[in-house]
Amino acid sequence: MTVERRKFLKTAALAGAGAGIAAPAIAQSSPKIQWRLASSFPKSLDTIYGAVDIFAKAVSDMTDGNFKIQTFAAGEIVPGPGVLEATQNGTVEVGETALYYFWGKDPTFALGTAIPFGLNPRQQNAWFYNGDGNKLMDEFLKGYNLKGLPGGNTGTQMGGWFRKEIKTVADLKGLKFRIGGMGGAVLSKLGVVPQSIPGGDIYPSLEKGTIDAAEWVGPYDDLKLGFNKVAPYYYYPGFWEGGANLHYIFNLEKYNQLPKNYQAILDAAASVSNIWMQSKYDADNPAALKSLVANGTKLRPFSQEILEASYKAAQELYKELSAKNANFKKIYDNMHEFQNNEYLWWQVAEFTYDNFMVRQRAKG
Amino acid sequence: MTVERRKFLKTAALAGAGAGIAAPAIAQSSPKIQWRLASSFPKSLDTIYGAVDIFAKAVSDMTDGNFKIQTFAAGEIVPGPGVLEATQNGTVEVGETALYYFWGKDPTFALGTAIPFGLNPRQQNAWFYNGDGNKLMDEFLKGYNLKGLPGGNTGTQMGGWFRKEIKTVADLKGLKFRIGGMGGAVLSKLGVVPQSIPGGDIYPSLEKGTIDAAEWVGPYDDLKLGFNKVAPYYYYPGFWEGGANLHYIFNLEKYNQLPKNYQAILDAAASVSNIWMQSKYDADNPAALKSLVANGTKLRPFSQEILEASYKAAQELYKELSAKNANFKKIYDNMHEFQNNEYLWWQVAEFTYDNFMVRQRAKG
Repeated sequence: MTVERRKFLKTAALAGAGAGIAAPAIAQSSPKIQWRLASSFPKSLDTIYGAVDIFAKAVSDMTDGNFKIQTFAAGEIVPGPGVLEATQNGTVEVGETALYYFWGKDPTFALGTAIPFGLNPRQQNAWFYNGDGNKLMDEFLKGYNLKGLPGGNTGTQMGGWFRKEIKTVADLKGLKFRIGGMGGAVLSKLGVVPQSIPGGDIYPSLEKGTIDAAEWVGPYDDLKLGFNKVAPYYYYPGFWEGGANLHYIFNLEKYNQLPKNYQAILDAAASVSNIWMQSKYDADNPAALKSLVANGTKLRPFSQEILEASYKAAQELYKELSAKNANFKKIYDNMHEFQNNEYLWWQVAEFTYDNFMVRQRAKG
Repeated sequence: MTVERRKFLKTAALAGAGAGIAAPAIAQSSPKIQWRLASSFPKSLDTIYGAVDIFAKAVSDMTDGNFKIQTFAAGEIVPGPGVLEATQNGTVEVGETALYYFWGKDPTFALGTAIPFGLNPRQQNAWFYNGDGNKLMDEFLKGYNLKGLPGGNTGTQMGGWFRKEIKTVADLKGLKFRIGGMGGAVLSKLGVVPQSIPGGDIYPSLEKGTIDAAEWVGPYDDLKLGFNKVAPYYYYPGFWEGGANLHYIFNLEKYNQLPKNYQAILDAAASVSNIWMQSKYDADNPAALKSLVANGTKLRPFSQEILEASYKAAQELYKELSAKNANFKKIYDNMHEFQNNEYLWWQVAEFTYDNFMVRQRAKG
């Protein structure tokens, strides 16, 4: 992790062999650097995790191999939940994580990833890049010695796998649902008993009936874990993750020590990763969904009653959190106002276009 | 436009003043390069055109100012429609354009931007980056001595400004509508008389009634041109541009002559531009829409009858074009199959999430 800086403040004019072109005298800053990146995710999530290799390759390609970022999956250097701390304290220079994992430390973290009934994926980029999102999240992350960059999105997630149909709010009562973060907090207001279970233990728990339901990501990732074999009902939408954004987080000092051109390269590599991750999910989910349905999965929309009660519970939660936490209130209010304006516009051209296309496709 | 290559194949270890760190012996490739970029758009389109400055700044920042791209608006070096040819023949190294402008040369160009009832913006990125889109378009562009990179999207556009309400297909008969490209070709099958008028002449033509209707982009750009003052009805969605993608096109030889790291930097800068353009439209359209409606604009959805007749006309057009043009058929078929799969998935989580959020917002 040593940073070897080279500055050719005065460079003699050199003629490249065969090129015959005089090189100008310029300052230059392409030090050899080796960084380590720890992801909160396993390699089996080849889209969320796969993005870190796209990111690292882009950085290496842009620097002729001078800036190398070695990537590590959850557990290789630190366990998935340890990525925030490992990046804060400089064990690694960069982490890939979903900030909402750390909402127990401070609910403000969740605003970097997704909150129930929050922004959809495109709106999230709009808030981050052309609203106040990145600026506000960085102000907050500074307190943790971190700087963040959006690195991709899963798209709107699925609501998960249920052993039995649920139709009313009464059906949620006592439901043991593997769901984390704020989604769990919202649903617990309606009687759900949120379960915290690592990814690898979901399948056997669902099979045995230790839990009644579990949510993961969407068709592409869920199919690989085989949840369809142990729970027939696949609900949508995952209203607690209308668009789950993944973050690159950087140790602030290490980031600030970089030459400006390397900082610009990291920014751009995160944009490459951002587009790639969302594109890969969008490209790969359809075939997985087809396969699930062909193998007997029963798709079910959450009922309007459940959606509305959950929406109400979410607003209560935001009110409670805002009363207790000034950071949360400030950033939530900013995002919420942005979102209201977004959907005002979204309902016009975007939504009516998709609506027609969806119906037209259904007609064949 | 000279390319000054510097390769330090063997570099003596140098100690930077005060740094005391030995620089390693490495090959390096950061030549000073000056390129020119010609856009097909005027500076007044500060999102579509504004993206070229974001793009050029990213390239400069990533190369410590070694790779400079000077940007020119339509008319400064060549008129907007001249950008393709100017890039082909190397007058400029890079252009920013909407490839569908050149569909008269070959309808295949349109598949790079938008076709009526085509992919929505996210689906377009998915097709470009994780489907066959970029590969197929580059195979086609190679025949024009070009290489392309997606550079941003407007989002689903609006259907434009109409002096009178139109409700049925019969109302389209003889309608003088300022609309270009394939949208015009589709609507002409329904009796519309497409008008080709430069942006600056639309306002007076609409005011005088020389034309009955005109489409441009969406609320943010349309408000600036003041169309609302001369036509009361603002229709949606612009079904001929479900997601209009803008392209960076590169002179193929100039691109191939670049060091690999500079090619990677251009790729990444295009991703930066891609996210920025869509984000800016998404962030700026809501306020413009509010202002239009507050000033009396009447929002109107196209009727189901008009949408369905247009959809049918579009399918006829694609059949005709496919029969005459093997390139079009090959790339259209690939995109069409991709799109069918996309909407199969889109209707599940994405669409139902947006649907609930739109309705919830309307309730206040």
